Amino acid sequence: MTVGHDALVSDEAVLAALVEAELGLVRAWAAVGALPSGEVDTIGAAWGGHPDVASLARDAVAGGNPVIPLVGLLKQTLPAELRPWVHRGATSQDILDTALMLVSRRAVDAVLASLAEAEQHLAAFAAEHRDLVAAGRTLAQHAVPITVGLRAAGWLSGLRRASTRLKQLTLPAQLGGAAGTRASFLALGGDAAAALPAHYAEALGLDDAGTVWHTSRWPVTELADALAQTTDALGKLAGDVVTLSRTEIGELSAGSGGGSSAMPQKNNPVAAVLIRSAALRAPQLAATLHLCAALAEDERPAGAWHAEWPTLRELLRLTLGASAHAAGLAAALRVDRRAVVRNLALTRGLIVAERLSIVLGPLIGAARVASLVAAAGAGEDLAVLLRDVPETAGLDIDALLDPAGYTGEAAAAVDRMPGVDPMIGADPVTGADRMTGESPS
Amino acid sequence: MTVGHDALVSDEAVLAALVEAELGLVRAWAAVGALPSGEVDTIGAAWGGHPDVASLARDAVAGGNPVIPLVGLLKQTLPAELRPWVHRGATSQDILDTALMLVSRRAVDAVLASLAEAEQHLAAFAAEHRDLVAAGRTLAQHAVPITVGLRAAGWLSGLRRASTRLKQLTLPAQLGGAAGTRASFLALGGDAAAALPAHYAEALGLDDAGTVWHTSRWPVTELADALAQTTDALGKLAGDVVTLSRTEIGELSAGSGGGSSAMPQKNNPVAAVLIRSAALRAPQLAATLHLCAALAEDERPAGAWHAEWPTLRELLRLTLGASAHAAGLAAALRVDRRAVVRNLALTRGLIVAERLSIVLGPLIGAARVASLVAAAGAGEDLAVLLRDVPETAGLDIDALLDPAGYTGEAAAAVDRMPGVDPMIGADPVTGADRMTGESPS
Amino acid sequence: MTVGHDALVSDEAVLAALVEAELGLVRAWAAVGALPSGEVDTIGAAWGGHPDVASLARDAVAGGNPVIPLVGLLKQTLPAELRPWVHRGATSQDILDTALMLVSRRAVDAVLASLAEAEQHLAAFAAEHRDLVAAGRTLAQHAVPITVGLRAAGWLSGLRRASTRLKQLTLPAQLGGAAGTRASFLALGGDAAAALPAHYAEALGLDDAGTVWHTSRWPVTELADALAQTTDALGKLAGDVVTLSRTEIGELSAGSGGGSSAMPQKNNPVAAVLIRSAALRAPQLAATLHLCAALAEDERPAGAWHAEWPTLRELLRLTLGASAHAAGLAAALRVDRRAVVRNLALTRGLIVAERLSIVLGPLIGAARVASLVAAAGAGEDLAVLLRDVPETAGLDIDALLDPAGYTGEAAAAVDRMPGVDPMIGADPVTGADRMTGESPS
Amino acid sequence: MTVGHDALVSDEAVLAALVEAELGLVRAWAAVGALPSGEVDTIGAAWGGHPDVASLARDAVAGGNPVIPLVGLLKQTLPAELRPWVHRGATSQDILDTALMLVSRRAVDAVLASLAEAEQHLAAFAAEHRDLVAAGRTLAQHAVPITVGLRAAGWLSGLRRASTRLKQLTLPAQLGGAAGTRASFLALGGDAAAALPAHYAEALGLDDAGTVWHTSRWPVTELADALAQTTDALGKLAGDVVTLSRTEIGELSAGSGGGSSAMPQKNNPVAAVLIRSAALRAPQLAATLHLCAALAEDERPAGAWHAEWPTLRELLRLTLGASAHAAGLAAALRVDRRAVVRNLALTRGLIVAERLSIVLGPLIGAARVASLVAAAGAGEDLAVLLRDVPETAGLDIDALLDPAGYTGEAAAAVDRMPGVDPMIGADPVTGADRMTGESPS
Repeated sequence: MTVGHDALVSDEAVLAALVEAELGLVRAWAAVGALPSGEVDTIGAAWGGHPDVASLARDAVAGGNPVIPLVGLLKQTLPAELRPWVHRGATSQDILDTALMLVSRRAVDAVLASLAEAEQHLAAFAAEHRDLVAAGRTLAQHAVPITVGLRAAGWLSGLRRASTRLKQLTLPAQLGGAAGTRASFLALGGDAAAALPAHYAEALGLDDAGTVWHTSRWPVTELADALAQTTDALGKLAGDVVTLSRTEIGELSAGSGGGSSAMPQKNNPVAAVLIRSAALRAPQLAATLHLCAALAEDERPAGAWHAEWPTLRELLRLTLGASAHAAGLAAALRVDRRAVVRNLALTRGLIVAERLSIVLGPLIGAARVASLVAAAGAGEDLAVLLRDVPETAGLDIDALLDPAGYTGEAAAAVDRMPGVDPMIGADPVTGADRMTGESPS
Repeated sequence: MTVGHDALVSDEAVLAALVEAELGLVRAWAAVGALPSGEVDTIGAAWGGHPDVASLARDAVAGGNPVIPLVGLLKQTLPAELRPWVHRGATSQDILDTALMLVSRRAVDAVLASLAEAEQHLAAFAAEHRDLVAAGRTLAQHAVPITVGLRAAGWLSGLRRASTRLKQLTLPAQLGGAAGTRASFLALGGDAAAALPAHYAEALGLDDAGTVWHTSRWPVTELADALAQTTDALGKLAGDVVTLSRTEIGELSAGSGGGSSAMPQKNNPVAAVLIRSAALRAPQLAATLHLCAALAEDERPAGAWHAEWPTLRELLRLTLGASAHAAGLAAALRVDRRAVVRNLALTRGLIVAERLSIVLGPLIGAARVASLVAAAGAGEDLAVLLRDVPETAGLDIDALLDPAGYTGEAAAAVDRMPGVDPMIGADPVTGADRMTGESPS
Repeated sequence: MTVGHDALVSDEAVLAALVEAELGLVRAWAAVGALPSGEVDTIGAAWGGHPDVASLARDAVAGGNPVIPLVGLLKQTLPAELRPWVHRGATSQDILDTALMLVSRRAVDAVLASLAEAEQHLAAFAAEHRDLVAAGRTLAQHAVPITVGLRAAGWLSGLRRASTRLKQLTLPAQLGGAAGTRASFLALGGDAAAALPAHYAEALGLDDAGTVWHTSRWPVTELADALAQTTDALGKLAGDVVTLSRTEIGELSAGSGGGSSAMPQKNNPVAAVLIRSAALRAPQLAATLHLCAALAEDERPAGAWHAEWPTLRELLRLTLGASAHAAGLAAALRVDRRAVVRNLALTRGLIVAERLSIVLGPLIGAARVASLVAAAGAGEDLAVLLRDVPETAGLDIDALLDPAGYTGEAAAAVDRMPGVDPMIGADPVTGADRMTGESPS
Repeated sequence: MTVGHDALVSDEAVLAALVEAELGLVRAWAAVGALPSGEVDTIGAAWGGHPDVASLARDAVAGGNPVIPLVGLLKQTLPAELRPWVHRGATSQDILDTALMLVSRRAVDAVLASLAEAEQHLAAFAAEHRDLVAAGRTLAQHAVPITVGLRAAGWLSGLRRASTRLKQLTLPAQLGGAAGTRASFLALGGDAAAALPAHYAEALGLDDAGTVWHTSRWPVTELADALAQTTDALGKLAGDVVTLSRTEIGELSAGSGGGSSAMPQKNNPVAAVLIRSAALRAPQLAATLHLCAALAEDERPAGAWHAEWPTLRELLRLTLGASAHAAGLAAALRVDRRAVVRNLALTRGLIVAERLSIVLGPLIGAARVASLVAAAGAGEDLAVLLRDVPETAGLDIDALLDPAGYTGEAAAAVDRMPGVDPMIGADPVTGADRMTGESPS
């Protein structure tokens, strides 16, 4: 079901990219002087309306790939004297690999735009909640205090790393001929044809890898890795949102969620759910692409190449969807500060048990600290217990038990995030949130 | 690109199955006496023309699943008094799980039909080539003689095992309500509603699992396992076809393969290539479904359930395509007996080296056998070498070196295959092939 | 790091199984009358102390598999006249496949024993908490009431289905010779050798598949599927335990969990964590085994067979560990009934919103029900709101809002679970828990 | 079974790395001035002999990770006054993540060394066979001519790209404390402790990521991606070696392969087989690591982190083994020039059918070319057929049919490979191979 960003990887988009790749080749032939550039315009105009997808798909199955019938259709749109310039010297793989890179280029750009949007929102969110102390959880249990800002900074760092990987990708055109020698191009165009690959890549706005990659499939797997890294980072964000918006936790909400056909009161974290769904699927799709690379036998493998197309498209589709949902999710993310404060107090002080070990351990020994912690765990009042310890006479027990005093470098880590403005967030004097005016209660 | 069997798992097919599931629920309410059966016909008639897929898909994303907007659309087609009977008591998951099982039921049936066709052809092929001796290969090297019939019997046994698994599947309807208690159905229908699940399953031609499976996802994973087992078995067949139709080997051809845009002389094993492509992808899709089952937390998981739908559909689509191609491939499979014989002779007798060890080892010791084999490997004539060994005086060297004398139970294994008619195949008297009349040369 | 059940799949266990497989072949030769049975005892005695693993492992890499050096070592332990009976007619794959099935047989039995233990505990747990009403959660949000017993019955049904699959497995011995023809056995033993495979399987306590499966790898993949289904079912249990033992939820605890090096107060759900870890890994291992089956080309594939051994062992190891942990987890599982009751009340009545739609919808229309639910969601008292509705005059609002009145077939589903004794659990008269005497508060 | 490079990822290696990580932390405390550096030496000396692995492994299971018991053991080796400096401020994950990066650092270095060796051999091989014309194969069928040198250059480019990825990896130390705030370090060491992470990383020779990555797992997945890319590139090489050393093809041999227990004449491509085995397994292991990253919930996930350790180790082990085998394989790779020439001629000229289309198409039209090709495919002599075509009067048919005239940029591509010396290889004047003196026949 094709919706929104999915259009970038739809059958129609792939077919359009195939036509673009064929036209790019025509342009390249013109660039090396073999064809008057006016003819390029004639051909481009003739191909403005693309042939029918359904009929092409039927033919594609018979031939194992859609390029062969497409070339026939494209030639039919042209006068006889121009037909030899269609698909000139190329093999199906040249066109299909290049078209997939064109589709990938646009999909990656759209993913990057969504990520940038999500990053901007998360940076603002991190800054806003830079000093909001919350329970940190390990193995699903309260551990030590963190801040909401630090958690968001962690999400942001994951997204930024993924963005960087996506930006560094090489997405090359492919022009190798039947088995990577480019013999057909040289036979057709002579020495001048040596410049075809560079012109082809340039005409299409793709990278020139400097080599053929028909059976050295790192352009596909490096792309797959970066896409999976993206859904990983988004999945981490979404997983935390799902957990923190649980009915019992309630620290986060993600704005307008989906309703339920049976329970009108529910406000499901739909965007996070759909992101998690994508994050569960992407790694295995990337694995398939690696397998295809590992099994790229001969000068074109018997199956491994064919398995790439739908897999890469699905992986692009998932990443497009997940990143678009993440942009919306990040924009809609809201903190329930009361819930944060309530949860932080749930262990009645034991959230700083580690700090007690550090501060009191040298004074009373680890065993007595453990026994105090155990007593508090069994229900006794930790502050009272601590005040009853003679060795704590000189200590400010309230300060010692204040989770806000045990957040380490959390604020600094938020400030260090590139792009996070430390001036946004809680007012250092009043403690009130600068954007909402709300006190941390 | 939707072609042929793909129609069984298309967006349209899923949407139709969703409507069927909703209608099945209406029928079940009638079956427990809550609704006059005439009303069922009214509703069924109103739903004859299904709502628009594209608009539904758009709405599906907003709600996280397509059922909520569908129910709205379906109600609009009915007079007000019938609307309460639409989706009565159900949760979206009831309808979606059931619809996917309907789609799966039909897809599995189509896969089984293709497999049956492929099995029939392979059985005939195995019988026909029951006694055609060929080189057996291990680690890509000639090992010992086998027969073409035995190899085909192996393919057949894999396909039959997969068919058996597919036939044994439980594909149940789902009717649990919001969290598996069926409380809504009882609230709406009283004690009589206890019989709804059985009627629902019956109305839809699905199994009644006797329990809800909203977060116990074995119906999905057992299906996935059987589908992957099917593509495994087909992949083994296809891989052998690809190898044995290599230009240098040429023992098999698969009839009309695909052409090439650049090399008109090629006759590519397209069906086998596409089957291999599917076989490379299916295992990771099945893995995703297992992960979804393992992560089916709470009473409906936040993402793991959603990841199932597209993954299962893609796995069904692959298996449908692979099995359909296999039926065609099996029908078109031809043996080049000359190539078989030529290849068998390539090691100039060493294909029976194991037999020499067995027969001559006790006479002359393993070391001398190895030395004879090594000399033959270096180019000497094995028969001459053997005749020069005094201890072989009483042996029929020609018979000893005849690969046909060292095929063990190959023929018996073909005869044991259920459904393989031992009467088809080489004429036991003349050795000529019964179907082609060609002599084994 | 080899611990407990891991010993069943250790290097030592595999080596011992290889020796057993070789001895099984010796026994089979004796069973067909080729070797006096007294010699079997001599050989068995000589092999009592197994050769050194480390040196064998070194040799294994050189040869690509460990059987070749093993055979050499085993022969060295015997007098010259018995040596020909070692590995007689066999290929390495016969011994290795059979040894892996021996290892699998024992590992599966141990998994089944752990599952039986876990199932027994879960059945008792389900019965004990048959009527304990709890919040059901979908997409991580409270949905409708369920019972703790129903949730446990769901876990149990998943485990039982997995157990059934494991019990139905065919784990066959392999005896095919170099390429599946068994020619070597017939050459060495004549017609009597036809009975070798059956005797071999019987001597080893393995199934006789009736055919060779050297490149038809369903015995491996069906095993892998059942193991993954097992970790799926265990993963579902473990995931729920992790969630329900969250600090904020606290409905479940799993007894003595692991401590923390930094936070002495923590009681981590270690068994559940380790089970989840296994459940995240198993599906991809099973996928690898399917790929190996799909790529089982020729009469022994060049790599796909070799990739099976370590993958299958790791999958067995994971399932052994996960099932053993699950037995302990199920035994230790405790419910905090106060937390269950507290959480159930968190939405202040909205947990039965679906019921309100059902009961009130016909009286006041869906729109007014939605508006009441929205008002309650915004903080108003739901009971008061409902009593203010004139049309509810005849309704018992307290009963309507009681989650215990909206659990549908939950109790019946627990009673229907095979092996669950409905007599255990809450006393139907007093409501007190029969085992703890504690009232449901 | 631990052999050779496997020692780098053995239980012992991990345990040693854990101890190193703990010692690195001690050094870091000294570097920030908290501990006299003499004490570091005392501690280092005490830990020279590592505690027993087996007992640690037993304890590791109880605690969910091995660090807790290790810290206890390490403290026992020290006088009481030094014990507080052990594991000071750290959480188990700090030590375990860091230890895995230490293990990874060494394993990656070893992989890089093997790759460099393989690359050197492949570069020489490519140069040596720069001009050896061979059949190029697509979909397992002869397509157009390539050169052996071009094929090797393709292998080389894949390996080099993988090497580059491995070299660019960030392998950071981890020092975040219980939940990533580093609060414990600041509490114990004051402001000076802010410099601990940098000193810690430096002491261990690891990168300083500038941030914690406890739940932002890109260091693990980027490593996994690069390892999978490595096994992909090696798998491509190995797959081609397996195919090209098939009995029927015989163009390549990989020197001393493994023998067979049953067939003494076989010379199995064992290194290639083991590399393929690794290449089939690595992608799914990398997928598991991506899943773990996507599921890295909270401040430490309940299972996803634990699943990383064994998976990453296995992936490192596979890549170590595959790269080591590849170095040997590349060194041993030999071409059978006669087989290359024989295979090239198999289609009796049709290997240049594409060229005929290009050259003759404009003269006689595509239809007549196709008909000539078809006639040749049916057995007629292609040269004779061509000479019979009047329009070919002015053409040098022998030159036209010479595959050596249709290798396009193959030689140039070899020359462009960085590190490939174009002076090695065929003598440009005589055509004789410079290293062997053999003429290309």
